[in-house]
Amino acid sequence: MNQYIREAIAEGRAGMKAGHGGPFGAVIVRDGSIVARAHNEVLTSNDPTAHAEILAIRRASVELKRFDLSDCEIYSSCEPCPMCFAAIHWAKFRNLYFACTRFDAAEIGFDDEYIYRVIRGEAEQLQVESTQLDREEGLALFSEFKHLEGKTLY
Amino acid sequence: MNQYIREAIAEGRAGMKAGHGGPFGAVIVRDGSIVARAHNEVLTSNDPTAHAEILAIRRASVELKRFDLSDCEIYSSCEPCPMCFAAIHWAKFRNLYFACTRFDAAEIGFDDEYIYRVIRGEAEQLQVESTQLDREEGLALFSEFKHLEGKTLY
Repeated sequence: MNQYIREAIAEGRAGMKAGHGGPFGAVIVRDGSIVARAHNEVLTSNDPTAHAEILAIRRASVELKRFDLSDCEIYSSCEPCPMCFAAIHWAKFRNLYFACTRFDAAEIGFDDEYIYRVIRGEAEQLQVESTQLDREEGLALFSEFKHLEGKTLY
Repeated sequence: MNQYIREAIAEGRAGMKAGHGGPFGAVIVRDGSIVARAHNEVLTSNDPTAHAEILAIRRASVELKRFDLSDCEIYSSCEPCPMCFAAIHWAKFRNLYFACTRFDAAEIGFDDEYIYRVIRGEAEQLQVESTQLDREEGLALFSEFKHLEGKTLY
């Protein structure tokens, strides 16, 4: 068994037993060492974004003092939801390893796959109604950014 | 102009001018009052998940002491990336309002649309290679969760 997947699952089990949230854990590895580990903390933090992968990324970026984690790998006990999957892209990871699938997660009551269906345009009903307003005023800000001198691009 | 979109854009402008991150802001509104506001802080926090919407959700859930924000609305200066869009679902919002589109964001160098293409299976190249490992061990944890007594479902 992969040792980092084992650690990710152990994290998820510890968080579940402590009542912190669902049975999900993640670890981030660099040069064979674990630089961050986390489990789901939605229940104890009241933060709906406190998924294992998000917390692990946040901790690794604090630890390494950079938002570019492209020299790291992320291991998760379950296939990431779209929030975490996109976060993995923003953190510039190149490799993701996971154990259970999103369909396994749905079986125990976590319907990540619904959000995937919404994004793919395949959902039968939309939870969130999206409305565009005042684009011109938004574009004025983007134009200021475009012409801003000395900005850091990332 | 919508007053909350105006506030979201003002937040984004303030963050951009302070050098905290890209020109993105968001506010969360409940019963006509702003309960949380945030701008992108990726650069100053070194946290790749520190997008305006994520930070606003985190602050609103701390403020209201709950992860269910279904009685709130979220306003953003720009169409959310998939990370923030999924977070909006996890927070149980029913209404999202935004000014600029993801294509406007791409024009100023923020390629949220690439991650949308990956999720839709339309990306020409994948930044992140995903590998499934040790599913049986992951399923053992999920089975423990399924049979756990007194757990909170969310």
